[in-house]
Amino acid sequence: MPAFHTLRWVDDTLELLDQKLLPARSEYPRFGSAAAVAGAIRDLVVRGAPAIGCAAAYGIAVEARRLRGQSPAQFDAGLQQAFEVLGASRPTAVNLHWALDRMRTHLAGSEGMDNNARADALLAAARDIADEDVRINRAMGTHGAALLPDVCCVMTHCNAGALATAGHGTALGIIRSAASAGKKIEVIANETRPFLQGARLTAWELQQDGIPVTLIADSAAGYLMGRRNIDAVIVGADRVAANGDVANKIGTYMMAVLARRHGIPFYVACPLSTIDPSSPDGSAIPIEERDAGEVAGYGGLRWAPQDIRITNPVFDVTPADLVTALVTERGVLESPSSAGIRELLGR
Amino acid sequence: MPAFHTLRWVDDTLELLDQKLLPARSEYPRFGSAAAVAGAIRDLVVRGAPAIGCAAAYGIAVEARRLRGQSPAQFDAGLQQAFEVLGASRPTAVNLHWALDRMRTHLAGSEGMDNNARADALLAAARDIADEDVRINRAMGTHGAALLPDVCCVMTHCNAGALATAGHGTALGIIRSAASAGKKIEVIANETRPFLQGARLTAWELQQDGIPVTLIADSAAGYLMGRRNIDAVIVGADRVAANGDVANKIGTYMMAVLARRHGIPFYVACPLSTIDPSSPDGSAIPIEERDAGEVAGYGGLRWAPQDIRITNPVFDVTPADLVTALVTERGVLESPSSAGIRELLGR
Repeated sequence: MPAFHTLRWVDDTLELLDQKLLPARSEYPRFGSAAAVAGAIRDLVVRGAPAIGCAAAYGIAVEARRLRGQSPAQFDAGLQQAFEVLGASRPTAVNLHWALDRMRTHLAGSEGMDNNARADALLAAARDIADEDVRINRAMGTHGAALLPDVCCVMTHCNAGALATAGHGTALGIIRSAASAGKKIEVIANETRPFLQGARLTAWELQQDGIPVTLIADSAAGYLMGRRNIDAVIVGADRVAANGDVANKIGTYMMAVLARRHGIPFYVACPLSTIDPSSPDGSAIPIEERDAGEVAGYGGLRWAPQDIRITNPVFDVTPADLVTALVTERGVLESPSSAGIRELLGR
Repeated sequence: MPAFHTLRWVDDTLELLDQKLLPARSEYPRFGSAAAVAGAIRDLVVRGAPAIGCAAAYGIAVEARRLRGQSPAQFDAGLQQAFEVLGASRPTAVNLHWALDRMRTHLAGSEGMDNNARADALLAAARDIADEDVRINRAMGTHGAALLPDVCCVMTHCNAGALATAGHGTALGIIRSAASAGKKIEVIANETRPFLQGARLTAWELQQDGIPVTLIADSAAGYLMGRRNIDAVIVGADRVAANGDVANKIGTYMMAVLARRHGIPFYVACPLSTIDPSSPDGSAIPIEERDAGEVAGYGGLRWAPQDIRITNPVFDVTPADLVTALVTERGVLESPSSAGIRELLGR
């Protein structure tokens, strides 16, 4: 297990590792309302599609706990509002909606019980989602590790690690599982501008685990693919469309195009909860545009000129034809297609 | 003319716009010896292949001026040392060596004259190199602008602007010439990690000239190529091999691969002085590795974990087959090849 917790239930609140402060400091602020959790999601205290889903589920649990002294009607109305504010906190990650839908089902299932019992049921449901996330990541890790040679170098983009999930990680979960299985694995981490999740989180997380990692500027990825033996590119996903198109951190598409040119397998670690059958293809996935300040500088330091126009899309779509395989908890789907994904979901 | 000077001879010294301080401050420190100029080149006070060549030539002139009271033997020995220290200041830019070779020829041609006359001759030679650079850029600008539609959007990487030359610029010179010719041109500037020449210099330089510019993270380039009408990618070059392979700022190769995928022309603005017939292909071009600190953070701010391994190659090689055309002062060479380049150089 990594030497940190991404999220944890403590004293009737949700405790989150504040990922905005990493790697300089490890702080664990606590969030006691759905609005506070939604703010933490929006402000990237917690990020990564699966972790966002878990945090949102706990956001409902924390709100139920907060409202349990109210009348049943107020309890219901407050939770409806909580679902709305949490659902609007990030637009691209499908797990958020998936987790909230599950919580909604549990809320409906608890109708007729008193508020205390309903709050307990919602907390148990949130815990289940988080526990299941770790189990799923471990299963994905086993399937994905089998794809890698015994001695290998893997490139990754952004952070699809324990920090992006309830634990173990998706893309980094595969790397962790490979290391646990005794494979000699080395990682090249793209820094992942603008928000530097690779530099701040992936590099830190792998360092904590003692897995060898080399940090590069995103722009050096193509050069290194040509100069070094890179055995695979492994990334996570924020949403996978029904045809296998993959929405993930901005830059992922560029890595996929380059991997194809260099004959390097391009693997996407995606729990089934990341697959969105209601998005027929990538063009149906909304791409979040975040604050221009992320590109203009970092952490209070500004290097761009004043009054410069900036565009900051933070996700892109990698078409399915560039994806060598999706790695899921139910196994590996090579050359993903609509038919293959339907079959996988129906397994 | 842009509202700034990249380099200028003032009071027997070389005045350089300190590009490390842009865009926050415009300061013009002066350099009174070859060692000081070499330090300025090494520390990126001045950067960009043509500007480095001009600065190195002035570095010889400034040293000659400094040594003119010495004995002829000391004058010669001092200048030999100046050629060495300037020649070693940056490894990839071929213009540096080209400019120093020209200065060496002028030094040899001044043998027998007194030190004052020799120093004057070397200053005149350095001025010629800088003046010629501007003339060449204007000629390239005219040839390149003709390739662009009357209303167009151009992506550029790094800074191949007036700031990278003695004036006007290579890639940005084409953009300036297009704007001067009345074309409605809009620029997308990649920020160009790690040293952020796009964010700090290109965005600033175009803003000074009133040319519309949008700044993006490098990782968003592929996404924008898919979502917007981009008519061309135009970059500069640090060295072009005899077969047309192009060494330029890290990330250039990725832009070329993506431009090809999206059917966008990829133009390289390169004065003939950038072509190195002695490098048969890109594999012969040394790729400079710079300080890891450039990737670990920026400007005193560190965001990478301590003790993390970093690799920081600052150039890459774009194979000739990805280059739509080289734009030179002698015209446009489409689909560059060894034969085409030989013919161009012999014109």
